[in-house]
Amino acid sequence: MASLDSVLTCIDLNLDQSLGRLFELLRIPSISTDPKYRSECRRAADYLAGDLAAIGFEASVRDTNGHPMVLARHEGPEGAPHVLFYGHYDVQPVDPIELWNSDPFEPVVTEGPDGAKRIVARGAADDKGQLMTFVEACRAYKAETGGLPCGVTILFEGEEESGSPSLLPFLEGHKDELKADAALVCDTNMWDRETPAISTGLRGLVGEEVVIKAASRDLHSGYYGGAAANPLHVLSRILGALHDETGRVTIPDFYEGVDEVPADVKAQWDELNFSEEDFLGDVGLWLAAGEKGRSVLEQTWSRPTAEVNGIIGGYTGAGFKTVIPAEARAKVSFRLVFQQDPEKLRENFRRFVRERLPADCSAEFHPHGGSPAIQLPFDSPWIAAASEALSEEWPNKAAMIGMGGSIPIAGEFKNQLGMETLLVGFGNGDDAIHSPNEKYEMTSFHKGQRSWARIIERIGRGVAA
Amino acid sequence: MASLDSVLTCIDLNLDQSLGRLFELLRIPSISTDPKYRSECRRAADYLAGDLAAIGFEASVRDTNGHPMVLARHEGPEGAPHVLFYGHYDVQPVDPIELWNSDPFEPVVTEGPDGAKRIVARGAADDKGQLMTFVEACRAYKAETGGLPCGVTILFEGEEESGSPSLLPFLEGHKDELKADAALVCDTNMWDRETPAISTGLRGLVGEEVVIKAASRDLHSGYYGGAAANPLHVLSRILGALHDETGRVTIPDFYEGVDEVPADVKAQWDELNFSEEDFLGDVGLWLAAGEKGRSVLEQTWSRPTAEVNGIIGGYTGAGFKTVIPAEARAKVSFRLVFQQDPEKLRENFRRFVRERLPADCSAEFHPHGGSPAIQLPFDSPWIAAASEALSEEWPNKAAMIGMGGSIPIAGEFKNQLGMETLLVGFGNGDDAIHSPNEKYEMTSFHKGQRSWARIIERIGRGVAA
Repeated sequence: MASLDSVLTCIDLNLDQSLGRLFELLRIPSISTDPKYRSECRRAADYLAGDLAAIGFEASVRDTNGHPMVLARHEGPEGAPHVLFYGHYDVQPVDPIELWNSDPFEPVVTEGPDGAKRIVARGAADDKGQLMTFVEACRAYKAETGGLPCGVTILFEGEEESGSPSLLPFLEGHKDELKADAALVCDTNMWDRETPAISTGLRGLVGEEVVIKAASRDLHSGYYGGAAANPLHVLSRILGALHDETGRVTIPDFYEGVDEVPADVKAQWDELNFSEEDFLGDVGLWLAAGEKGRSVLEQTWSRPTAEVNGIIGGYTGAGFKTVIPAEARAKVSFRLVFQQDPEKLRENFRRFVRERLPADCSAEFHPHGGSPAIQLPFDSPWIAAASEALSEEWPNKAAMIGMGGSIPIAGEFKNQLGMETLLVGFGNGDDAIHSPNEKYEMTSFHKGQRSWARIIERIGRGVAA
Repeated sequence: MASLDSVLTCIDLNLDQSLGRLFELLRIPSISTDPKYRSECRRAADYLAGDLAAIGFEASVRDTNGHPMVLARHEGPEGAPHVLFYGHYDVQPVDPIELWNSDPFEPVVTEGPDGAKRIVARGAADDKGQLMTFVEACRAYKAETGGLPCGVTILFEGEEESGSPSLLPFLEGHKDELKADAALVCDTNMWDRETPAISTGLRGLVGEEVVIKAASRDLHSGYYGGAAANPLHVLSRILGALHDETGRVTIPDFYEGVDEVPADVKAQWDELNFSEEDFLGDVGLWLAAGEKGRSVLEQTWSRPTAEVNGIIGGYTGAGFKTVIPAEARAKVSFRLVFQQDPEKLRENFRRFVRERLPADCSAEFHPHGGSPAIQLPFDSPWIAAASEALSEEWPNKAAMIGMGGSIPIAGEFKNQLGMETLLVGFGNGDDAIHSPNEKYEMTSFHKGQRSWARIIERIGRGVAA
């Protein structure tokens, strides 16, 4: 434990330097979904590979059909476990840019309403700040001890925010290099500011874009209004029919494969003293909008959703234009739980849309990724080890929680590499990821590094199979 | 009649020159709804005032709170009637720009599928091409006879495409200058390529923008999805409920003030041999989308509508973003008939929206103009005079028709100045006004000039009160 103590002290003493390195990474606008930032994504990958090489990893940038992967490896002591750490260097788009208080790609440290320091930038929390907590823990370990307490392979991808199209082929093509005893992912939240969390379930995700086409050109709403099909009406009717009055999704067979959460798990969730009022109140809402008779934790952790993420059609600029547009489009995503089948669900949605089209209209569909939900065993020894280490660092014991978000990689690690994935993250619910003024608490960045040092130290001492 | 013949010959001989002048006007991108084209609107006004002064009008540009008016006056012979001619120099936006085959503001003459020449540019038909037919008729009259056969006041506005906010105050403030025996408006269509038309009814228009607001910021659809209100869902549900299964608008009291068209008028419409198949087929549709049991002519001439003209919300760029947006917005317009009250209808729509909001969401409304429908008496002597003149110029007798579009000015001329408005235009149904590749038939431009020469000559001989 003497060496762990010196590693933790090293982390404390070097916090400013580690912040400087994070800032360098945050300044790179690696928006993966928008083709015009392609070279910036590569720049982020190059930066990370260089940094890992400087620490002592054997690191390289690997090309894919999309944005490149960063792959790095460092051996551990003879006989110690080997872990695969995963993160993503790509970030979400920044719009609406006018709501940011500072340049999304010029990170700043500000003070939150609670007086605590926070790092503000696109990617501060999702996922650059989080992945750097692990990198910095490794750096401190190397600096203090000359090695790492367990073997570590690092995989950073650059397409997590755009459906990870290259990930599965890459896993399939590099099984030998990636194989490890368990995977670690740092892309999730704390339970609260004093309680670390290990996520035992993640919702899956299906993305779908639908384009409703009516007339062969835009029409004048005076000449044609009342007689010609309006694709905005057709789209509104379809999307407006996605949920019934009880909040249930109306797509046929949508709930196929959805289980109820066991009573003991529900009981554990109840003990978390989750405040629905605060959760919704923090973002200016007060009504749980989802399925009636379900708690917010159920609605976001164990129930599937259909959400419209974007609609555009007709004239949307300043002023007014009395047009009946030729087409209208929407981006719709589904969060999946338990055994819901992504591709079956996609087909059911498409049929749902087609069945509601007037005969002289048509629909075009564009898939945007699909991944099933994952559910970890509650009695995993890896969870026990991480829980022990985290509970040493934070005021409260680690909580086992569900997760509303989707991290497709976790399912693929299980399917492709036969590994369990340990989801440990230091984000907070108010980090505004995917939103303007995204931030990461300085405490998360600092104690996140310390937490990872403790976790790899604990893993280095062996995990019962 | 000798002088009319020489005027018509003068028009024929000067067609190329008149086309050159129209091109100059079409090159000015006077998009009134978009503030960044403000100076271009003024440039169009200046151009027209200069041209009218060159003909011999007493012409000036008059400032308003928005885009300026052009006002010009030329006296007629002692005792001859005096008419007010109205047109608008502003044009619609050009998006989607990628669907244009040529620069919208660099007019070209191309050949249509029927081999006929057409002028292609934004505003070619709506309304620059149309208004110039009248100006050119006046020019030819002056050139050949040194005067005009009746008194003429010309009013060109620059806000017709953006709700005409300055028009009513201008009419109220300039009643003495604008007062005439009747108003002439050239912003409507022929019945077909061989049949001129006089519009006896025009639908009114109410424009309304609605913004649905939910959370105080954009949310991650993983963390919040299933629990947080999604304004895109709320908006879709509301807009999807605007019509029932029979195509009727569901807003309470919407049909208050809507009369049935008298049987004899319907009979006249039936004689027009209107082809619903062609009307819809020309734009790739084949189902009348409006109220069941109504003909397309009824749906577009004598029935009110609710049309969504634009929706935007959430992420609409390339790729995907799993966001629950803070707000969503739609532009909705209503076409009014008979005695429907614009402001009452607006209030009923707002109530309709508010009643469908979840308690933690709100709606913001922005009005975009409102004007009642107008209905001219079928036995007007002005209609008889114009019909007589038009029937001399074209192969077929002039048709008395309804109109789906809205020309707010006509109602205001009646209310403010006590004048009847004669709606005579030379557009065609396929002119693609408000759409890419807007065009105006060369025949419309040429015979339109000749038609106006005939009409003012006929008016000059006196119109029985």
